[in-house]
Amino acid sequence: MRSTPHAETFPAHTPAAAQVFTAVLSHGPLTRLEAGRRTGLSPAAVTKAVRPLLASGYLVEGGGPEEGGTAGEARPALGRPAGLVRVNGERALFAGVKATGDELIAVLTDLCCRVRLARRAPLPDRAAGPALAALTDLVHELLAHAAESNAPVAGLGIAVSGDVDRAEGVVRYSPFLDWRDVPLAELAATACGLPVTVDNDVRALTVAEQWFGAGAGLSDFALVTVGAGIGCGLVVHGRVVAGAHGVAGEIGHLVADPAGPLCHCGNRGCVEAIAGDAAIAARIREVTGRDVPDSAAAVALAHQGVPGAREVYARAGEAIGRGIATVANLLGPERVIISGEGLAAYDLFAEQIRQAFTTAAFGSAARCDVQTRPLPFEEWARGAAATAIQTFITHGTGSGKG
Amino acid sequence: MRSTPHAETFPAHTPAAAQVFTAVLSHGPLTRLEAGRRTGLSPAAVTKAVRPLLASGYLVEGGGPEEGGTAGEARPALGRPAGLVRVNGERALFAGVKATGDELIAVLTDLCCRVRLARRAPLPDRAAGPALAALTDLVHELLAHAAESNAPVAGLGIAVSGDVDRAEGVVRYSPFLDWRDVPLAELAATACGLPVTVDNDVRALTVAEQWFGAGAGLSDFALVTVGAGIGCGLVVHGRVVAGAHGVAGEIGHLVADPAGPLCHCGNRGCVEAIAGDAAIAARIREVTGRDVPDSAAAVALAHQGVPGAREVYARAGEAIGRGIATVANLLGPERVIISGEGLAAYDLFAEQIRQAFTTAAFGSAARCDVQTRPLPFEEWARGAAATAIQTFITHGTGSGKG
Repeated sequence: MRSTPHAETFPAHTPAAAQVFTAVLSHGPLTRLEAGRRTGLSPAAVTKAVRPLLASGYLVEGGGPEEGGTAGEARPALGRPAGLVRVNGERALFAGVKATGDELIAVLTDLCCRVRLARRAPLPDRAAGPALAALTDLVHELLAHAAESNAPVAGLGIAVSGDVDRAEGVVRYSPFLDWRDVPLAELAATACGLPVTVDNDVRALTVAEQWFGAGAGLSDFALVTVGAGIGCGLVVHGRVVAGAHGVAGEIGHLVADPAGPLCHCGNRGCVEAIAGDAAIAARIREVTGRDVPDSAAAVALAHQGVPGAREVYARAGEAIGRGIATVANLLGPERVIISGEGLAAYDLFAEQIRQAFTTAAFGSAARCDVQTRPLPFEEWARGAAATAIQTFITHGTGSGKG
Repeated sequence: MRSTPHAETFPAHTPAAAQVFTAVLSHGPLTRLEAGRRTGLSPAAVTKAVRPLLASGYLVEGGGPEEGGTAGEARPALGRPAGLVRVNGERALFAGVKATGDELIAVLTDLCCRVRLARRAPLPDRAAGPALAALTDLVHELLAHAAESNAPVAGLGIAVSGDVDRAEGVVRYSPFLDWRDVPLAELAATACGLPVTVDNDVRALTVAEQWFGAGAGLSDFALVTVGAGIGCGLVVHGRVVAGAHGVAGEIGHLVADPAGPLCHCGNRGCVEAIAGDAAIAARIREVTGRDVPDSAAAVALAHQGVPGAREVYARAGEAIGRGIATVANLLGPERVIISGEGLAAYDLFAEQIRQAFTTAAFGSAARCDVQTRPLPFEEWARGAAATAIQTFITHGTGSGKG
């Protein structure tokens, strides 16, 4: 086991402390009164939760540098209501890594989940062993940078697509990496010398969106990602849905057309089997007879007006729109955010997504606000760092277990 | 406006009071410590919430008559841990009514939602005016019975299928009653002289299942009802999902087969258009050429082995199973409870439901516990009474508004 920079622990791992800390983290400086309003806690409970966080420097009094205060000062900034507390971003650092099928994307963030450094590395071999070695090298680059500051690195978050058991730290099945039952948290913790949180990549991105993105302030929203896979993160009653058995948000495996193409999951006509990158490329190859090495080539053929290519995107859009309507009909979210690397082709199926959604949404479910939002992979890696911060503030250490 | 028996108010309409009261209501007598554990509230917060509820007689100390104590006594019962509190069922009564397309089912319950009296009345005319008159007569029967006890009737809950805006008390659209934008809460409050809560019938039944039924103690479950409509109540993170725009749980309008029969919602192949009572009867009529006046006749033809009839049920079961798998893939509930009057035909499609569910469930979502549970319409009416109790304890009066 490599050396840990600092065995950092969060002082008060009570639900109230985590709630107050998260509210201050995502909403910026808050008065205790406002923190109570946002968490539903009594003023006494907020005061009790805040005290050890102030004493240990995780929270500081004042509005913060960007709001006109000075980092760490105890006096409230001029013209600001007294009693504001904010997260002291300098107090700890976190690393986040998103793994795609052929690349690792890593960020180093502060405790406010602001990105300090971003790095990418290719993933020439997807097998768990070589992938772990590449990940360890990348994390050590971040750690070397972190060593220049005084702040300890308190945790690492890793985001992987597929069926991920966060509590156990195990990747149960990741189709794009072709991994089954990989105890990634344990392996990475040993290799990197950090407490590790492993989560499904879309759920990790959903945490980032909930804290800092288009889901901030909403108690119910969905994030739908289109690209290699079609994923969905769900926030219901203010919390990310994880599923009792680790599976949730599997919009990619809703059946859009029982007579459709075979999916890697064994069923026919799944949304992913119609609208995933590989499915689109394969179908365009079939329809046009051209060589379609990747998604960029598929998009190019459609943009060039090669007969049949646009229709493939239209059908994909219809499947995605129907999947989004399913989410809206079951959960009635306030907003659905569409993102993912597939947005590069969005002009090719935006209209069909919207039309299929409007047609299949039942009654006032159609009033759901559907919007697109480009989020680069660095944002997914930031989501992974956010899951590490979550673990740190809820479990008292950076380790997801226990 | 008719006379109200008693303008009853709940003493402490804080979130904490409602949480503690609900925990004690659904789990039976609890110590303050246990109530704190179940609600996540601090001991101080529980004590503060309990005090006015004890003072006003909504809670009483002791294990209760059925647990060996005596109603209302302040001493803990022999052999019981000290400090138990329980709901004083005698303190207030509630009425609950479930409306189907041709019948009203009503119950009078105590504050513990135990049924004191159940009554049914036919609904010869579904138009809002005559239906309201029939409902008013039925509620007055309950009130006459209630007048024999000392307890005030503190609220009326009405459960109606379709798109119901509980906050506004309006039935936006109920296909089976053919109602649009009926301000039912206001009309019924005036006619019955009681504060009224109106909710979607499946959501109301879900509240009863969460408090007292197969969902008790589960933070995430789904209730799927098969019959005239195919409905779904969802509990996520311990709370019933209502939808940001009033629509949620619309499993009946998930598209099971885009090439399927036309649904009343305008789409093709909705689960309800394949597996709803009317759809099944219509299809069996078409396939067999026989007269199929109602569901009982449809079931009889299938049981008699009339060629083609069983296949119609098989297809219905497949659509229902696929709908349940969709819920499991998106939300990963611990349990799915199947109920509704359609259970009368359950032997005809149970196997197809299970098979379609298992096939379409993604990965460990298949580990969800799917079970059936017959719930008569009186249980739905009890759910309606439960929504009235909810309103009473969360709003401080029996009225859903405000």
